Amino acid sequence: MKKIINDPKRVVDESVAGFALAHADLVRIETDPIFVVRADAPVAGKVGLVSGGGSGHEPLHAGYVGHGMLDAAVPGAVFTSPTPDPILAATKAVDGGAGVLHIVKNYTGDVLNFETAADLAAADGIEVRAVVTNDDVAVKDSLYTAGRRGVAGTVLVEKIAGASAQRGDTLDEVAGIAERVNANARSMGMALTPCTVPHAGEPSFTLADDEYELGIGIHGEPGRERLPLEPADAIVDRMLAPILEDLPFSSGDRVLLFVNGMGGTPQVELYIAYRRAAEALAEHGIEVARSLVGNYITSLEMQGFSLTLLKLDDEMVELWDAPVQTPALRWGR
Amino acid sequence: MKKIINDPKRVVDESVAGFALAHADLVRIETDPIFVVRADAPVAGKVGLVSGGGSGHEPLHAGYVGHGMLDAAVPGAVFTSPTPDPILAATKAVDGGAGVLHIVKNYTGDVLNFETAADLAAADGIEVRAVVTNDDVAVKDSLYTAGRRGVAGTVLVEKIAGASAQRGDTLDEVAGIAERVNANARSMGMALTPCTVPHAGEPSFTLADDEYELGIGIHGEPGRERLPLEPADAIVDRMLAPILEDLPFSSGDRVLLFVNGMGGTPQVELYIAYRRAAEALAEHGIEVARSLVGNYITSLEMQGFSLTLLKLDDEMVELWDAPVQTPALRWGR
Repeated sequence: MKKIINDPKRVVDESVAGFALAHADLVRIETDPIFVVRADAPVAGKVGLVSGGGSGHEPLHAGYVGHGMLDAAVPGAVFTSPTPDPILAATKAVDGGAGVLHIVKNYTGDVLNFETAADLAAADGIEVRAVVTNDDVAVKDSLYTAGRRGVAGTVLVEKIAGASAQRGDTLDEVAGIAERVNANARSMGMALTPCTVPHAGEPSFTLADDEYELGIGIHGEPGRERLPLEPADAIVDRMLAPILEDLPFSSGDRVLLFVNGMGGTPQVELYIAYRRAAEALAEHGIEVARSLVGNYITSLEMQGFSLTLLKLDDEMVELWDAPVQTPALRWGR
Repeated sequence: MKKIINDPKRVVDESVAGFALAHADLVRIETDPIFVVRADAPVAGKVGLVSGGGSGHEPLHAGYVGHGMLDAAVPGAVFTSPTPDPILAATKAVDGGAGVLHIVKNYTGDVLNFETAADLAAADGIEVRAVVTNDDVAVKDSLYTAGRRGVAGTVLVEKIAGASAQRGDTLDEVAGIAERVNANARSMGMALTPCTVPHAGEPSFTLADDEYELGIGIHGEPGRERLPLEPADAIVDRMLAPILEDLPFSSGDRVLLFVNGMGGTPQVELYIAYRRAAEALAEHGIEVARSLVGNYITSLEMQGFSLTLLKLDDEMVELWDAPVQTPALRWGR
């Protein structure tokens, strides 16, 4: 295992400490228990947004803490759900009196631990709602999931619901928009290589030199099938077909096209994938109204990418364009 | 070779096409010859900034085209200098009557081809100045360089000189600030793994499973030495010592601390490196006034990182903080 780390057991603590030092203008951290919170939290009268999950997917979630997006992010160990304790502490820390929304990727551990924390917060008089993201069309159930997995669509839910909260919407309204974004987002991933979890020390799976995994999960969980490596355009077409069928997306729709790197993919390759996806959507009469390309939800150093389509309406566009000031997503102020 | 590409010969063309589609609000491309240019270029009365070089270092340089940074970027083939022809065309395209600054990383091919283009532009009546960046303290001369290599400091030169041009400074002033940033920036890189150039098809070098290369170049050129892998903090200390000695940086200085990923490094590792660098600078009495952490100048999928320190003055801080709207760096408007 070749990694720029000190002690595998201290990877998350040291990384979060560095993150907080680098972005002290936007965030602060609590260390016992550990979570990342907006520098100015709690914001009185604003719905608080909390997300979290296993580490190793950075910039998700801590990179999205700040004005117009999340109020707090709770990092678990690498690829391991955070316990209820820090989720509860984060929920209390961002409660500005208007309630708190939990944004939870659909993995069994995350869902259970966020539910427990929500129950404890409710006992303390904080109104909590949860939206569970499940945008991955690759598999019905998975190694760690009953139902579909929550993947890159989560970033879009966090941005758009974050803007809704920032403009002063109520907890019901923010939760409703978060649900609407999740319901209109579909994703599919692929991998060329595995990744190595620091405390495991070995690659999470193996792939032959001429194979890729279609429908991979963000923890390296198996997807739909292993296929011989083929040209980028063929891979994109194979990923896009089930996405388009599923909602379905149809001619005349306006979408946000999100090409996400898994962590180790050169940017030139992401844009080659973007090019074909945009071209294919044009062939279907679907208008790409907004785009996002880069490493936004990763699997450590895995090479691969995911495609996400979000069917947009006017309100989603307005909230997507709204100012955001976080370490990883920043525009418009 | 496992890559998300179609034809190795079309990597740059297809990637730049995808880039232009994804960022049509900020940039457009010309294809014969190929370069990326600000959507609103030329800006009348503003000094134009042109950079470029071999592809494979994305987001450098095309990712920095936009308001407050570059006016054009000229991509060569992967790790290969662009020829004078597209550099000349880009220079003409951004000439708003106030002259054009070329920002050139110190590699023999880049320097020669930018000089040739500058001579041709001058013959057409365009005033051109050049700043050649050479911030890498690792080696005196290198495989592709007489003198020090230009590496991550180039990103800081482009941002700060870009802000100087954007506020209306003259060509002499913009060139002067670019030179000052370069003169006050020092960098050092390291790699855990090589990368594979698409048209070569094989890794650019080999490293044993327990080795890293200290002082690596951004094309995988050899650095200072190969060392047994050691903890992140020890690596950071080993990279920081020659940087601090070289300018020198001393107690009371204010700096920008830039931890740059080489392309395949997980973000958790970059922040672990940032943490130690910030701690070590505090031990030296050096104030970290600004930070940048992420993949800003890469070597395809190489795993590794570089450290850059820029000694700041008040004007540099003001120009660093000024609004910038590019695909890869965006804040404050």
